[in-house]
Amino acid sequence: MRIILIGATGHIGKAVAAELKQRHEVITAGRSSGDLIMDITDPKSIRSAFEQAGNFDAVICCAGHTTWKPFVEMTYEDYEFGLKDKLMGQVNLVLIGREYINDNGSFTLSTGVTDHDPIPMGSSASMVANAISGFVMAAAIEMPRGQRINVVSPGVIEEAMGTYGAFFRGHCPVPAARAALGYAKSVEGLQNGQTFRIVL
Amino acid sequence: MRIILIGATGHIGKAVAAELKQRHEVITAGRSSGDLIMDITDPKSIRSAFEQAGNFDAVICCAGHTTWKPFVEMTYEDYEFGLKDKLMGQVNLVLIGREYINDNGSFTLSTGVTDHDPIPMGSSASMVANAISGFVMAAAIEMPRGQRINVVSPGVIEEAMGTYGAFFRGHCPVPAARAALGYAKSVEGLQNGQTFRIVL
Ligand SMILES: NC(=O)c1ccc[n+]([C@@H]2O[C@H](COP(=O)([O-])OP(=O)(O)OC[C@H]3O[C@@H](n4cnc5c(N)ncnc54)[C@H](OP(=O)(O)O)[C@@H]3O)[C@@H](O)[C@H]2O)c1
Ligand SMILES: NC(=O)c1ccc[n+]([C@@H]2O[C@H](COP(=O)([O-])OP(=O)(O)OC[C@H]3O[C@@H](n4cnc5c(N)ncnc54)[C@H](OP(=O)(O)O)[C@@H]3O)[C@@H](O)[C@H]2O)c1
Repeated sequence: MRIILIGATGHIGKAVAAELKQRHEVITAGRSSGDLIMDITDPKSIRSAFEQAGNFDAVICCAGHTTWKPFVEMTYEDYEFGLKDKLMGQVNLVLIGREYINDNGSFTLSTGVTDHDPIPMGSSASMVANAISGFVMAAAIEMPRGQRINVVSPGVIEEAMGTYGAFFRGHCPVPAARAALGYAKSVEGLQNGQTFRIVL
Repeated sequence: MRIILIGATGHIGKAVAAELKQRHEVITAGRSSGDLIMDITDPKSIRSAFEQAGNFDAVICCAGHTTWKPFVEMTYEDYEFGLKDKLMGQVNLVLIGREYINDNGSFTLSTGVTDHDPIPMGSSASMVANAISGFVMAAAIEMPRGQRINVVSPGVIEEAMGTYGAFFRGHCPVPAARAALGYAKSVEGLQNGQTFRIVL
């Protein structure tokens, strides 16, 4: 398969690339580096990257940001940021990508463990993760041309504990290579509308 | 208790008012009628209504819209509409209301059965419903001054089958009075961070 991987230089994306390059052609994409330059928050840049990509069978997104702040400090704008970036950035990949992807192609988005296990400062992350799961579950039954869509929800990544460890006390870190299997299952399997939770 | 009920003239809101008026003071609110005039999509009107309300112990929202369209026709703007209206409208009630509500007060928001049971044309409804559930689950663990927050997720309402029946084929309609019990449980009980699914 030809697979477009957004966020290929990140903690998770690197492991997804390593897993899938063994069997597939992986076309990397990101804001600042990769085979394609693409910012998921900018629909024009998504369209132009897909135009350049040629035929492809799968889109994987390992990118997206939300605001981490105590709930009492969270404002309307803080929630709006995550909705525009991690939620609608990934949804845009699907809305635009559904025109370009091959028949029976798949989309695989990313959320995280806060979809069911809330943490302090994580109210935007939980909002956005569940919005993505809900979108994926419902869009799945209406995807055109045999397209599929799933989401991978990994626990805090072992290789990222330096940055995120203090947010996720008591959580069991997941090696990025273990999380990467969730993306392989979504792309190489045939499930649709699922949230694959990768927690240990 | 003094309870502010937004959407009190609607199919669900009417039944919630009937249930709670038996034991509590219900202050009604809506865009066009009620004791308070308030548009949940307009933060200024929310603040001004809470300023006028005096002390209150609970806020219930039975209002909010999303776009119903086949997935292949759904655009970025269609999703944005539901995020601004039903999601952030209800979230705004909490962000502003948390300053005004009494200690140990409660917020009860509304979603619907598409949070777990997707229907054709419902990808925005499923996105928004899950975003609200995720927000509620996570905000619950950080609410200030003993405040609680829950969401009620009713099946299609029997009294609204004229409008929604064609969207919900195969769904068992729920009498509005049955759905209203979910709101009473949230306000009069002590649970926090829950989604009360009222399906038959
Ligand atoms: N790390 C964890 O513990 C963990 C756990 C569960 C879920 N997640 C989620 O999984 C995703 C990836 O996490 P990560 O830790 O691997 O991220 P990361 O190490 O920060 O890497 C992010 C990757 O995405 C790219 N990127 C960032 N913003 C982008 C945009 N707007 N458009 C296109 N590409 C963009 C970055 O490259 P450029 O800067 O060049 O664009 C980079 O390749 C995030 O959504 C994160 O919330 C992370
Ligand atoms: N009907 C169903 O089968 C069903 C099932 C599950 C969930 N739900 C959800 O439950 C909620 C209520 O449904 P419903 O059928 O009872 O609605 P409805 O009959 O259409 O009534 C809506 C109520 O909300 C008020 N309202 C609408 N927009 C508002 C705004 N921006 N700010 C403040 N008030 C507003 C309306 O009064 P004004 O016009 O005066 O503002 C009215 O009182 C909706 O979110 C709906 O999606 C409905």
